[in-house]
Amino acid sequence: MKLYDFKMAPNPRRAVMFMAEKGLDIPRVSVDLGSRAQLKEDYARVNPMQQVPALELDDGTVITESVAICQYLEELHPEPNLMGRTPLERAQVTMWERRMEQQGLMAVSEAFRNDNPFFEGRSLSGPVDLDQIPALAERGRKRFSHFMRQLDGFLADRPYVAGDRFTFADITGFIVIDFARVIKMRPPEELANLTRWYAEIGSRPSAKA
Amino acid sequence: MKLYDFKMAPNPRRAVMFMAEKGLDIPRVSVDLGSRAQLKEDYARVNPMQQVPALELDDGTVITESVAICQYLEELHPEPNLMGRTPLERAQVTMWERRMEQQGLMAVSEAFRNDNPFFEGRSLSGPVDLDQIPALAERGRKRFSHFMRQLDGFLADRPYVAGDRFTFADITGFIVIDFARVIKMRPPEELANLTRWYAEIGSRPSAKA
Repeated sequence: MKLYDFKMAPNPRRAVMFMAEKGLDIPRVSVDLGSRAQLKEDYARVNPMQQVPALELDDGTVITESVAICQYLEELHPEPNLMGRTPLERAQVTMWERRMEQQGLMAVSEAFRNDNPFFEGRSLSGPVDLDQIPALAERGRKRFSHFMRQLDGFLADRPYVAGDRFTFADITGFIVIDFARVIKMRPPEELANLTRWYAEIGSRPSAKA
Repeated sequence: MKLYDFKMAPNPRRAVMFMAEKGLDIPRVSVDLGSRAQLKEDYARVNPMQQVPALELDDGTVITESVAICQYLEELHPEPNLMGRTPLERAQVTMWERRMEQQGLMAVSEAFRNDNPFFEGRSLSGPVDLDQIPALAERGRKRFSHFMRQLDGFLADRPYVAGDRFTFADITGFIVIDFARVIKMRPPEELANLTRWYAEIGSRPSAKA
């Protein structure tokens, strides 16, 4: 088994942090997004969507999409549990994880990719070249600002994103807040719940994996 | 148990078609998106993300996000299986379902919501008012056109999106193609694999649920 990743990209980091929490030592192959290696034929054979991460199994089968990769690893290595122990808890972790992704990660990504010169003509990852849209960068910043305030509210009455214990939803949430460095947006100090939670998750060894 | 939905919206339709495939008759409460009922206080108490669908359990617990709702129903009612029978198959269904959503549904939604006058100031669902961005409508159409060609290619060597049987990935894929009526984009006849698959899924009783 090996994981194709790139250390600066948030989606592979979800899988890498997940693996570290599980204590899994899966070999990693860096796909250099800096030189657009993900768009070259070699990698397009691994993942036709030309995105990282991708998990290649020993028989050559490839699983892409960080959520699918983590789900697979959770089933193979159930402990420590990160995705829920009952049908209801599993649904709640999925729900919260998706909120982190849809409201948070998508916002930061649209702010970053529509503003940074490196992404000229590449405003989305994947196989289609798309022009940057400056208004979309602005929209992303507005959304992310709201996301941080909303997440702070959710964290007012519970220690972790999905409830009373650390789950995959915290992994995605933490990576989103951390990734927002690229658009120079940091959690404002007055968001005390968010600040407390962000520091706590950041102190886990998996945050440095 | 009851499902908050709205019949013209694609995300609740994923849950409704899924329920129909399972033979589940769960009461549905229509949230009138036409009059913006999802933004009013009553519904914001059900789902703070102000989106449909939401599944309310008998004890008042609410699960939102169509994927989380379907995952929950799959675990409670395992047959007919729609999300995979083994860890690998489950990961593959998740992977393909996400591709349908990320590459397909997001593209149609950005084309629709950034162009249609009804969505002025509401270019995304959820709690933040966001201006329409005409360039994003154009980008959505370009992405969706590519999505249809790519999906046609994937369907060249297999009958269904995730492999040799009908799964949740077909539900999302079908709903995406169907929903593209709102931006007046239909599968071109020359995409024979896509056309064959779309007609077949559309003939299932669940497509009319």
